[in-house]
Amino acid sequence: MLSFESDYNNGAHPNILKRLVETNDTKSRTYGYDLWSDSARSKIKAACGCPDAQIWFLVGGTQTNATVIDSLLHTYEGVVSVDTGHINTHEAGAIEFTEHKVITIKGRDGKMDAQDLDNYMDEFLHDGNAEHCVYPGMVYITFPTELGTLYTARELDSVYQVCRKYDLPLYVDGARLGYGLMAEENDITLPYLAKHCDAFYIGGTKVGALCGEAVVFTHNNAHPHFFNIIKQHGALVAKGRTIGLQFDALFTDNLYFDISRHAIKMAMKMKKIFKKKGYRFLIDSPTNQQFVILHNDEMARLAKHVHFTVWGKYDRSHTSCRFVTSWATTEEEVEELRTIVMSEEETDRS
Amino acid sequence: MLSFESDYNNGAHPNILKRLVETNDTKSRTYGYDLWSDSARSKIKAACGCPDAQIWFLVGGTQTNATVIDSLLHTYEGVVSVDTGHINTHEAGAIEFTEHKVITIKGRDGKMDAQDLDNYMDEFLHDGNAEHCVYPGMVYITFPTELGTLYTARELDSVYQVCRKYDLPLYVDGARLGYGLMAEENDITLPYLAKHCDAFYIGGTKVGALCGEAVVFTHNNAHPHFFNIIKQHGALVAKGRTIGLQFDALFTDNLYFDISRHAIKMAMKMKKIFKKKGYRFLIDSPTNQQFVILHNDEMARLAKHVHFTVWGKYDRSHTSCRFVTSWATTEEEVEELRTIVMSEEETDRS
Amino acid sequence: MLSFESDYNNGAHPNILKRLVETNDTKSRTYGYDLWSDSARSKIKAACGCPDAQIWFLVGGTQTNATVIDSLLHTYEGVVSVDTGHINTHEAGAIEFTEHKVITIKGRDGKMDAQDLDNYMDEFLHDGNAEHCVYPGMVYITFPTELGTLYTARELDSVYQVCRKYDLPLYVDGARLGYGLMAEENDITLPYLAKHCDAFYIGGTKVGALCGEAVVFTHNNAHPHFFNIIKQHGALVAKGRTIGLQFDALFTDNLYFDISRHAIKMAMKMKKIFKKKGYRFLIDSPTNQQFVILHNDEMARLAKHVHFTVWGKYDRSHTSCRFVTSWATTEEEVEELRTIVMSEEETDRS
Amino acid sequence: MLSFESDYNNGAHPNILKRLVETNDTKSRTYGYDLWSDSARSKIKAACGCPDAQIWFLVGGTQTNATVIDSLLHTYEGVVSVDTGHINTHEAGAIEFTEHKVITIKGRDGKMDAQDLDNYMDEFLHDGNAEHCVYPGMVYITFPTELGTLYTARELDSVYQVCRKYDLPLYVDGARLGYGLMAEENDITLPYLAKHCDAFYIGGTKVGALCGEAVVFTHNNAHPHFFNIIKQHGALVAKGRTIGLQFDALFTDNLYFDISRHAIKMAMKMKKIFKKKGYRFLIDSPTNQQFVILHNDEMARLAKHVHFTVWGKYDRSHTSCRFVTSWATTEEEVEELRTIVMSEEETDRS
Repeated sequence: MLSFESDYNNGAHPNILKRLVETNDTKSRTYGYDLWSDSARSKIKAACGCPDAQIWFLVGGTQTNATVIDSLLHTYEGVVSVDTGHINTHEAGAIEFTEHKVITIKGRDGKMDAQDLDNYMDEFLHDGNAEHCVYPGMVYITFPTELGTLYTARELDSVYQVCRKYDLPLYVDGARLGYGLMAEENDITLPYLAKHCDAFYIGGTKVGALCGEAVVFTHNNAHPHFFNIIKQHGALVAKGRTIGLQFDALFTDNLYFDISRHAIKMAMKMKKIFKKKGYRFLIDSPTNQQFVILHNDEMARLAKHVHFTVWGKYDRSHTSCRFVTSWATTEEEVEELRTIVMSEEETDRS
Repeated sequence: MLSFESDYNNGAHPNILKRLVETNDTKSRTYGYDLWSDSARSKIKAACGCPDAQIWFLVGGTQTNATVIDSLLHTYEGVVSVDTGHINTHEAGAIEFTEHKVITIKGRDGKMDAQDLDNYMDEFLHDGNAEHCVYPGMVYITFPTELGTLYTARELDSVYQVCRKYDLPLYVDGARLGYGLMAEENDITLPYLAKHCDAFYIGGTKVGALCGEAVVFTHNNAHPHFFNIIKQHGALVAKGRTIGLQFDALFTDNLYFDISRHAIKMAMKMKKIFKKKGYRFLIDSPTNQQFVILHNDEMARLAKHVHFTVWGKYDRSHTSCRFVTSWATTEEEVEELRTIVMSEEETDRS
Repeated sequence: MLSFESDYNNGAHPNILKRLVETNDTKSRTYGYDLWSDSARSKIKAACGCPDAQIWFLVGGTQTNATVIDSLLHTYEGVVSVDTGHINTHEAGAIEFTEHKVITIKGRDGKMDAQDLDNYMDEFLHDGNAEHCVYPGMVYITFPTELGTLYTARELDSVYQVCRKYDLPLYVDGARLGYGLMAEENDITLPYLAKHCDAFYIGGTKVGALCGEAVVFTHNNAHPHFFNIIKQHGALVAKGRTIGLQFDALFTDNLYFDISRHAIKMAMKMKKIFKKKGYRFLIDSPTNQQFVILHNDEMARLAKHVHFTVWGKYDRSHTSCRFVTSWATTEEEVEELRTIVMSEEETDRS
Repeated sequence: MLSFESDYNNGAHPNILKRLVETNDTKSRTYGYDLWSDSARSKIKAACGCPDAQIWFLVGGTQTNATVIDSLLHTYEGVVSVDTGHINTHEAGAIEFTEHKVITIKGRDGKMDAQDLDNYMDEFLHDGNAEHCVYPGMVYITFPTELGTLYTARELDSVYQVCRKYDLPLYVDGARLGYGLMAEENDITLPYLAKHCDAFYIGGTKVGALCGEAVVFTHNNAHPHFFNIIKQHGALVAKGRTIGLQFDALFTDNLYFDISRHAIKMAMKMKKIFKKKGYRFLIDSPTNQQFVILHNDEMARLAKHVHFTVWGKYDRSHTSCRFVTSWATTEEEVEELRTIVMSEEETDRS
């Protein structure tokens, strides 16, 4: 059965496995102090144009968000996010588990609008009851967003300027960062991103690795005890080399970018197939996640041949469904999908 | 200067002080095991028509909400509230501090609509991603609401039926319970309330006491270690008699209800004054909190003579302001307010 | 029945009730911004010789410890205490509830030894695994201790010097502060205490008040958002006047000190009675708590006539029992106790 | 440079890498619902003789401890451990981070004595102040212990009987489980362990895997929402196959046991070398961790040639040092170590 259900339904890029095999017999230091992790850090700093960056390797996205956010907030502060933000919806309360509120602003196609943020802050600061409220202590955005959309360079800059105006660290969740950077209409580079936020993470799990996310504090601004905080959160990996090595491979010879570009190419092909069939989209996504509105009968028909994610009810007879490509999606899989979608097979509308 | 800023800008009802003085020289057991606390519990059970109720005395509202909610939830669960709910807005993250998310539903005039709750639960249970979300573990409502509005008996029943359908404990924040029960249009009695929720608290701080809230678990359903949980939350009062005695006084000879009725009478007088002057209201409140929309110049004029709470910007030139009466508001104060409001003093609109 | 069970088995000092009655009809600002709270703060600052002190009023001891400690620690830090410290034994995990570990050092008669603290810190800093441990972020001691003992001025200074050496804030739990300061052998004054720690609290609940503890940050070093942290902990009192007024009374005309001295006088009388009867003591306590070792039969006999606290098994046939005096203990009560203790009534040793 | 510093200074067993490579191109379900994870679960159940076991795969030890313990405790409960327990010393407060206290009992050579536990529980239940204390909610032990020692079958049974007497779940930290099971003097089998505790984990990180620990709830007793709790703790791995596959390999053809036996063989060789050289040991360890007492000059000499862990000061001139073998330790490395240790090279005692 075909699987377009997620971008983590696969193994690792062959280069990564190769490196794991090559280095397997070498003993090393632990907890991220090994040479491969150091090498990965240097390569990532270079790619970000950020010589002062501090880089740490964690295992997964929710863990990374909870650890970084907890390290940036005082106990009485909350994190500002759009309502559709991953930390507000699909992290099982991992942020609240660290005792911080997720303060929500209504998103616009999954994105935070700079003016909305400015208005929120302005109202907060003029609220006579602010002492009784959760203080906004930082801002969280995702790139690309949970809906597959992208901030333009200008939009990111605007959000960052508001953050600086109110002295709020800006943290960017880059679980699918590669797929954003390599999107055709994207005008943000990795160095631009690094210059326009205080911390972000480069997603590995969804972009070629077995597991692993690289946290980047962009200007030597990590909490001085961030190692300890990682440990306290249960996020410290004893064999740090396991993740360090993978990022070393991903940031060698542009691998991270090349495989991301491939996923986008596959996504755009897939998008065309859906369009040609006449399906509508929940949102016009330029990245590897496509949200297609299917008649419930059509959804049932496709489900017999391909895995995808049921995203939500659209109306009484339609459902929005998510189809995702990744670095591991092959041309053959997309062609198979085309055949299935285009098939004149009878859908059961009894 | 007149004060209509809040319903806790005062001391205690004289009966309470009298009892404190009378009993002062008697030694007693501590931590709520004293005889006066026992007496208060009996009287409250009788007033609620709830022989199986379990009753605890805590100090303040935020503390009570955080302690009760934490005792009713599993670690991975959140509490469902309307967006304007006190726990979501003005408790400085005290709920998140106990690691639970406040899951919000859009309120209707400060109230939770039973159908909205049903829809939310239905969607949650059919969400393929539910495993990755915060589970709704209970429902929180306020009576009266933060906007001064009231659930009708029928509305409360509807919300409770939905709660039972989904096996969610219903907890009612009664910080101003007396003012709701004694409102003219109210059709809910204390026994009716007790039969239509799993826990609630009877507000003392805002209704005659120096401090203190009485938590009622309505059907012998308190956590078996609720005492320990109170202590862990820093909410245990060593001299439990201090609060027990006050509730004993409040539930003697209908005091709690009589003084609440007085506050409502004063509130309705005040409302008429504002109406007569031609002010509009943010909402039509039948209780002791009135939200008046004032032109900013008029607001400035009144602020010279009377304390009130600036609630929020209404439009460019108007602000909504909260005026509150309490058991301690005198006829004289209301008359003084009338004079100030009705005065033809020039407002400065330069 | 006589009660020597605790020092919070009573009401309030009459001066406090008088002030509550006198001010009852005056409306005031809330949350501690009232004039009486301001007055109390001024008087406490003067008594402490601390013009730069910041003072807050909370309700009870456990709450105060949890709130102050949480405000002084980073998320990854713990608080160092002796093993018998109240926060480590009888606060139901209120400190861990705020996510901080209580790191214990073996106490000496309930006190922390400066050299022990120094050794602990020295070892910690030289521990190659420190990154994997909880960092010591502050030090907690009690005065008087849970065993009724006192630090000498020299001992306190030594502990404070070690704290300064390692840049650890020193916080002193003064739940029974008055009874320590007024002990005959004590050589610490309130200004001396204030100069030799970073924060402490003046216990009200056990020394004359209905409830309330006054937190003193000694050198303008409270967390800038301490108000918000209080609220988040559920420790904010709406009618702040209730506690402010009580401390205003306690710090008028030396009341706090005078009534503490009385308790000590009663305690020393009581101690003599036990001594004369031939009882041994668990520890030689100069304060209002006396720990007497009773044969189990004798314990049973006394329990018929007087409330006291069973502290712990001493050996197979003996138990250590706590007898406590307070500001409210009368000469008559002590004389009654004498009669009971000295009685030749047969104890049942069958 | 030789490395005997830890048992996680290496890569993965070749069989694991082979399986990762073989399966790499297959798409799969995520979050542990893949077929390889299912297969691993079946094999582990069989190896444990536990058809009713529930098995979950997490990433690391501290994370596993924090997640399992939090799932087994009520909010007001703590976990009982010996003072040297990993959760009490080297997990950076990860347990307190979940709001639970680690209640300590003095260990005996790193082990919990059943009688000590019984005494502790007996005293707790007879403590008149128990309501004010943290309730013991479960028991945590390690096998092998942090000092390399082992419980005998009889000792484990005794501890478990005390746990059942007081209705306390027993959880066993098996970070180095294989090295305990394969020790020469060990008389505990995997099925015996599974029958004598309520939950345990099989360490993968230190026994052949790149990362990963397998949690076993022995009798269908996992929290019904354990998946959600894993997610909330940031411990859910998107590509669950990464860990499932590794355990599938480890539990194929006895690999886990065979490689553990090898580590023990290497450890015993190493132990003999140290003994022959005349070194003393901190403790007589039958497992892969050996704690050698070295003169500080000798320690300095060895440190030039081999990595090991400085464990702690022994006396003024001696230090205890940890040398560890693993499945990946080769005969050649042990021989090299022999040469270094036995060398007559001058140690610098100036």
